[in-house]
Amino acid sequence: MKFTIKKELLLEALSKVSKAISTKNLIPVLAGVKFELKKKKLTLTASDNDITIQTTIDSDNEENFKIENEGSIIIQGKYILDIVRKLPDDFINIEVIDELKILIYTENSEFNLNGISESEYPNVGLEESKKKVDIKVGTLKSIVYQTAFASSNEESKPVLTGINFNIAGDILECNSTDSYRLARKVIKLDKSSEENYNIVIPSHNILEFTKILGDDEEIVELHIFSNKILFKTGNLKFESRLINGTYPNTSNLLPDDSFLVVSTNLNAFYNVIDRVSILTSDKEKNIVTLETQGNTLILKSSSVEIGRVEEKMTVNKSNNEDIKISFSAKYMMEALKSFSTETVDLHFVGEIKPILIKSSEDESLTQLVLPIRTY
Amino acid sequence: MKFTIKKELLLEALSKVSKAISTKNLIPVLAGVKFELKKKKLTLTASDNDITIQTTIDSDNEENFKIENEGSIIIQGKYILDIVRKLPDDFINIEVIDELKILIYTENSEFNLNGISESEYPNVGLEESKKKVDIKVGTLKSIVYQTAFASSNEESKPVLTGINFNIAGDILECNSTDSYRLARKVIKLDKSSEENYNIVIPSHNILEFTKILGDDEEIVELHIFSNKILFKTGNLKFESRLINGTYPNTSNLLPDDSFLVVSTNLNAFYNVIDRVSILTSDKEKNIVTLETQGNTLILKSSSVEIGRVEEKMTVNKSNNEDIKISFSAKYMMEALKSFSTETVDLHFVGEIKPILIKSSEDESLTQLVLPIRTY
Repeated sequence: MKFTIKKELLLEALSKVSKAISTKNLIPVLAGVKFELKKKKLTLTASDNDITIQTTIDSDNEENFKIENEGSIIIQGKYILDIVRKLPDDFINIEVIDELKILIYTENSEFNLNGISESEYPNVGLEESKKKVDIKVGTLKSIVYQTAFASSNEESKPVLTGINFNIAGDILECNSTDSYRLARKVIKLDKSSEENYNIVIPSHNILEFTKILGDDEEIVELHIFSNKILFKTGNLKFESRLINGTYPNTSNLLPDDSFLVVSTNLNAFYNVIDRVSILTSDKEKNIVTLETQGNTLILKSSSVEIGRVEEKMTVNKSNNEDIKISFSAKYMMEALKSFSTETVDLHFVGEIKPILIKSSEDESLTQLVLPIRTY
Repeated sequence: MKFTIKKELLLEALSKVSKAISTKNLIPVLAGVKFELKKKKLTLTASDNDITIQTTIDSDNEENFKIENEGSIIIQGKYILDIVRKLPDDFINIEVIDELKILIYTENSEFNLNGISESEYPNVGLEESKKKVDIKVGTLKSIVYQTAFASSNEESKPVLTGINFNIAGDILECNSTDSYRLARKVIKLDKSSEENYNIVIPSHNILEFTKILGDDEEIVELHIFSNKILFKTGNLKFESRLINGTYPNTSNLLPDDSFLVVSTNLNAFYNVIDRVSILTSDKEKNIVTLETQGNTLILKSSSVEIGRVEEKMTVNKSNNEDIKISFSAKYMMEALKSFSTETVDLHFVGEIKPILIKSSEDESLTQLVLPIRTY
């Protein structure tokens, strides 16, 4: 293997696959990045057994990427990324010598790394399915940003540590819940799916994927299997395992018989809750109480040791009914942050019933926060 | 106590004193900020027994700061800072009611905090000395930035966890060493000190102080006592304990009989060492070897498991002598970072003698890095 490549091209590709480099030392070869140079194409692969990332660089422009010899080798991932990042030159030469030595050199720098034979790299899959589902990159990013935060961190409930993707016809419904709150995003696909799917993707993995996604207007293909999902976009492939188990049916959690809807400016409401929660001593479950009195919204919290706080703001209401309800400020703020609208609507069903947060500016998103009994 | 104050004024003052709010729960009252409003002046004080910070706000402009009643109280530091920071209003009203309740309110927000009686606050000192030493704020910032990094983190050698300030006449010499490297800064004072001093200021404390220092052109007064130092600048007072014990005499560490001086561009040399140290596995003491061959500087490092690296750069030399020497890349990089010059000069005395780093552009600073024997 011998080639000369523009630094920026290699750095971009390495940065993408590096998210999958294993940092555990269980399987040493997985701490490496597999370089495969054949048919005028450099393929980089990294995997930690949980996710696998692969990207390719085409040598269609000899000025940017000039191949002398084809070949394959595994290079230690941590070092190759650092080396390429820190080399000041525009072009980098990479060459395998003595079978398993990798020479990385520019005019004044010469790195000589120990490599591992390509034959030791495990088979990492990355097969495509015959049927695929297409989503816009920007849409997938929104889904993940607006739902992943609501999933659980507790490994004791594995299925809740993922995002549920439910595909039926041209409707994609995504749910994420830790059983105290629920985030739901419903999207109409441009093209109906040939098959229906109901899968759970680990939130952590799909969050990593969205970090390396590019242009919002591009299409990402979902290739769904029984135990894994392959995302493919441009020259990038990202595979994740799926979480086994049945995702809870969350539809019955979303009541549509609210007796009162309170409409408010999103930022103003967020900031009020942020201030009211300053004094709540238990930072994990900081409880605030919301109350309406006519068109005045009153938010309160108190702590015997520290003191109490009361904030007022003027809101629009759907009718003259009033509500008094308590909830976690943290959960409410995270739910509010998922909206990029100017206003939000709080739908109240009862004092001990879930609060729905929606916006007339974006019907695709619903957030639900459970109330907390304070008496 | 009752007053109305411009938010920005109070926030700036609170941000400064908050660095001294105690986060340990040993003495609860020290988790508070003492508010003292008298003689048209609000004085804020915080102390964690290691450092004490005090700042004052004058009510010389009623539009910014209007006093209704004088008085004093201790307010829980963590909350008052958060409240003032997050209130959206331009002006904030603060009032003591029922003796120990503090009301903080604006148009739509009302915080009611539990306070502590001023009488419970310990005497925190802050006396001034009759003799003082004046330094420019910008000069003090440079001293700390250029020397503090070289002091030790190990509490087993307390005296090395500080910066040694040695004042004799109009010369201030500052030393900092962890016994593997030494940073020395020598300043000529605008005015001779009436007395000579040889003190050790905890590096951590003086670093905190430089973070809240303002305009480089202002003067900071040093009031030095046997066991503490008071810094005073404008309406800000900062007091730190001093470290007991005799600081080692470092002068004999600085040889002036170098047989070779290598001059190089600072950034280029820094980046070469940064790259050469990528492969050094022990990240704490990453050893690199420097060698001259004529006007070529060669930097190398190697690791049996990972591989090896060699970098070359062209430098200017004082004569035809050559050197081969090994040192910690981390220590060399930290020493280089303390220079804001374009070039640096490396003074070599011998293969097992300290390396001196100086710059003809700034004679006030000397860095010393000990070599590491690699054979």
